[in-house]
Amino acid sequence: MAALRIGIAGLGVVGGALLRLLLLDNQRFADAGVDVAVTAISARNRRRDRGVDVSGVAWFDDPVALARSPDVDCVVELIGGADGPARAAVSAAIAAGKHVVTANKAMLAEHGAALARAAEEKGVSLLFEAAVAGGIPVIRAVREGAAVSRITEIAGVLNGTCNYILSEMAAKGLGYPEALEGAQRLGYAEADPRFDVGGIDAAHKLVVLGLVGFGVETALADVSVEGIEAVAREDILCADALGYAIRLIAIGRRTEEGLEMRVHPALVAASHPIARTEGADNIILLQSDPGGSLLLMGPGAGPGPTASAVSADIIDVARGVRGPVMRAPAPKIAPATLLPADRQMSRCYLRLSLQDAPGAIAGVAQALADHAISIDSLMQPSVGEHPGQDVAASVVITTHLAPVGEVRKAVAAIAARPFSRARPQLIRIEDFEG
Amino acid sequence: MAALRIGIAGLGVVGGALLRLLLLDNQRFADAGVDVAVTAISARNRRRDRGVDVSGVAWFDDPVALARSPDVDCVVELIGGADGPARAAVSAAIAAGKHVVTANKAMLAEHGAALARAAEEKGVSLLFEAAVAGGIPVIRAVREGAAVSRITEIAGVLNGTCNYILSEMAAKGLGYPEALEGAQRLGYAEADPRFDVGGIDAAHKLVVLGLVGFGVETALADVSVEGIEAVAREDILCADALGYAIRLIAIGRRTEEGLEMRVHPALVAASHPIARTEGADNIILLQSDPGGSLLLMGPGAGPGPTASAVSADIIDVARGVRGPVMRAPAPKIAPATLLPADRQMSRCYLRLSLQDAPGAIAGVAQALADHAISIDSLMQPSVGEHPGQDVAASVVITTHLAPVGEVRKAVAAIAARPFSRARPQLIRIEDFEG
Repeated sequence: MAALRIGIAGLGVVGGALLRLLLLDNQRFADAGVDVAVTAISARNRRRDRGVDVSGVAWFDDPVALARSPDVDCVVELIGGADGPARAAVSAAIAAGKHVVTANKAMLAEHGAALARAAEEKGVSLLFEAAVAGGIPVIRAVREGAAVSRITEIAGVLNGTCNYILSEMAAKGLGYPEALEGAQRLGYAEADPRFDVGGIDAAHKLVVLGLVGFGVETALADVSVEGIEAVAREDILCADALGYAIRLIAIGRRTEEGLEMRVHPALVAASHPIARTEGADNIILLQSDPGGSLLLMGPGAGPGPTASAVSADIIDVARGVRGPVMRAPAPKIAPATLLPADRQMSRCYLRLSLQDAPGAIAGVAQALADHAISIDSLMQPSVGEHPGQDVAASVVITTHLAPVGEVRKAVAAIAARPFSRARPQLIRIEDFEG
Repeated sequence: MAALRIGIAGLGVVGGALLRLLLLDNQRFADAGVDVAVTAISARNRRRDRGVDVSGVAWFDDPVALARSPDVDCVVELIGGADGPARAAVSAAIAAGKHVVTANKAMLAEHGAALARAAEEKGVSLLFEAAVAGGIPVIRAVREGAAVSRITEIAGVLNGTCNYILSEMAAKGLGYPEALEGAQRLGYAEADPRFDVGGIDAAHKLVVLGLVGFGVETALADVSVEGIEAVAREDILCADALGYAIRLIAIGRRTEEGLEMRVHPALVAASHPIARTEGADNIILLQSDPGGSLLLMGPGAGPGPTASAVSADIIDVARGVRGPVMRAPAPKIAPATLLPADRQMSRCYLRLSLQDAPGAIAGVAQALADHAISIDSLMQPSVGEHPGQDVAASVVITTHLAPVGEVRKAVAAIAARPFSRARPQLIRIEDFEG
């Protein structure tokens, strides 16, 4: 059997790791029973040292030309970005009848359904294990492991940068700006961190998981997204006192009213594995029927795990594995009936700064009652509990389940009252099973 | 495309759930883009009500005849047992060029390598996601997700009965015999529980994971197996005081000295997800390079999750997915170089009953020193710590890493000294990452 000829478009840290794996450690592929060879590469900078001799590999300045090369059977796209050269190369590859392996979550989130249709029409593979949660084989688990189960919920922590910042805030008592600065200094956060801390990166991944797991097409605009920028040191301290940690979570959940798709910071029980995710760790919880409750935890990023996931896809291509790109064949992918954020039910955490706390609490309780929101707990964190960190003027309330829109209205009403000293904080509480 | 014709041999709880899924809920398979039909069934009792009309399905008294039927393309073996009718049916199916899906861990542990060779020679699929950890797609994660990574460790909790008994002992302060009796009364443990509580069930699963993950053939006799029968209520209490829970763990680990394959009770950090496994939950930790550290947790048993896993395999067969049965092609499967239990390194927990504790401790310390074992901690649990539960005469020692054989020798020396009031207890401590 002839070797599967691989063209790699994009040679950043993951592309470089993959290139070295294929060229210097090809025996690993042979041990898996497949014959694969890199025949073409493309990147922005031809001269950069990639730690391996590439003189025997054809160079392309243009990734689209690489995708069309007759010496390439499978294009590995590691350029990134929803459109531009990445999408052009992938579309060209599919049109030319070549298999595609990609780690590009943004492209899949925006054009996944269309690309799946194109690939299935051409009878080629389009695999993307590395696009979501790096080294965790979640796409396989959803697409194949749960192929016959009805997935009712996909939830998790999908962004390592936010983990890092929130863990640092908790561990060192830092405020958000200082923790972000530290993350940038260490290279965990980009100079422009909005994609990560603003929740867009996690939302892209959630859209891809929805496409694979629920078989529905949602746009980024369908996801209600809140970032972690407004999480304060005080919230981390108060959450801790209540037995919670704060993480940026992504949730896709089928309800009788429609599909919830949301990314936001949430209080999660400190004892739950989700609260244990640190740094580049990702975690995913799947609920399916009759599959049950599944938890997957592992590296969400990093060149090694990501290159390993890309390699797993390459091996599937080489083995001739052909199935629907998503969980169901592309023609069955439908638009989703979404449940808007305001109608989603949630327990909530409120941190209020009240000028005259004892007197104001009656007003707060009335505002909540006016919106039919019942109070689960009320706490006035004292200085004594957190020596040297003044949260004395705060009142922290947790609510029972309520429509988020009603909680928001109540919070707005509280903010408008004269006893409110600062903008109230509202963070959802997510009670994960197990 | 013609339907994939399924013959199910064995209609217990899992077989019954699968049968209903295929007959009453076939749309789930159609939604996944495959056309599958049950054409034949076989079980011990033809008359039992299986909650579905099977009059349109051919009945076979003999599963081997079912396996040879010209109306069957894929045999699903759910009979169980390493040999007998299960193995006869699977061998007959492969010989007849039919695909096989099985949940039979005992058969795979004893004959997996030979069956893999036979299936690959015939060019048929042999899939077994449900054989290990029920609804957790661990076989996929190992065989495909980590296809190019070198797996260095596979560890986990693979037996739900032991979870149940150990959790009950911890939660209710029961002794082992009472907890076992309770498990039997509720149907969590068999009348003859030795397979589960003696560690054989977990060892079978570990051998299968070793075959898939390490690509090595080991026999049950190669696994050092200890059950949970000797774990006492006092051990659970003392472990708790030290910040640990006790679980029956299975570990396959590559070391420079050879492969460790072992099943035994162990102290695991109470904060680790492994200590949180309750009832039918299973958990698996994978270490691989460059894949990193992966944790999978979910239902290890139950008709729904198991039937879901079997269905995932059926879908792979229907989609024409063909790869090596194990992680590497069968001819590459080699015997393992094993590291015997006595030479394995471990931290250990010792609970000693000493007649005259203060005076005897010097003797104990000397016995440990004689075997070059250094003490990490020493504790004398007092009655006060566990009101009403007398562990006052106990001395609990935790050691630093030492060869298990040396610890055993030291324990034997201590047992032989006149100050030993009862057989010393020795349980390993396993410090899992994360």
